[in-house]
Amino acid sequence: MHVSKDLVIRPIGRVESTLTTREDAPRQGDEGAPDAWLVFTENVREALKDLTVGDDVILITWFDRADRDVLAVHPRNDLARPMTGVFSTRSPDRPNPLALHRVTILAINDLRLQVSNLEALDGTPLVDVKPVLGDER
Amino acid sequence: MHVSKDLVIRPIGRVESTLTTREDAPRQGDEGAPDAWLVFTENVREALKDLTVGDDVILITWFDRADRDVLAVHPRNDLARPMTGVFSTRSPDRPNPLALHRVTILAINDLRLQVSNLEALDGTPLVDVKPVLGDER
Repeated sequence: MHVSKDLVIRPIGRVESTLTTREDAPRQGDEGAPDAWLVFTENVREALKDLTVGDDVILITWFDRADRDVLAVHPRNDLARPMTGVFSTRSPDRPNPLALHRVTILAINDLRLQVSNLEALDGTPLVDVKPVLGDER
Repeated sequence: MHVSKDLVIRPIGRVESTLTTREDAPRQGDEGAPDAWLVFTENVREALKDLTVGDDVILITWFDRADRDVLAVHPRNDLARPMTGVFSTRSPDRPNPLALHRVTILAINDLRLQVSNLEALDGTPLVDVKPVLGDER
């Protein structure tokens, strides 16, 4: 398959988290994921400048430890559940392993942002930050 | 910058829409974007199989006509508004031009899904489909 250069993600930073393996990660963000730091690269400083403590944002990450050839899974790894197409699940294993996280900004220190309740492993590449759906564009 | 092969998007299909230029596109989905068809590639058939008419999903697209070097914009192209970092906006111009769309599935015909109110130009690459945030994963 031809891959256009335009379809290459340019990471904008990395997650710093106490979660280091998939087995550590909770199944859902509201089941107790830890607070974490987002460490942005210098070249996106200007894009960050209007984020403020207390903002709710959608963070997009790239789950670099995913299996991209998986097309169906047992939801929640529960073998009693029927195999389900990944586009009907939040499985990290999927053709393009992007994850969406709704988080609150807890602290800002230059290029480092602390956020609440982030289900992403240490070292996960950051891809984008957006206002929550329905907000100003 | 080193680019890992794992950070390359594999398009899962394309948008078919009557919107063909950025000037045609409404500023917000709820300001009257048209219904559109999502045309998926054969190799993701299994990932789609549990999507059903009436489902609300988050569609991720890649805005291939974006300017990836833009870090700040006047929101809504309104010059009276101060330049704002793109991570605080929904500007299509941003380092990784992923767009999130909350849409309802209106019809399914094999590898083609019709969805409501999609603000994406004809030919836009499809990247992922997920249940709405907070749903089952």
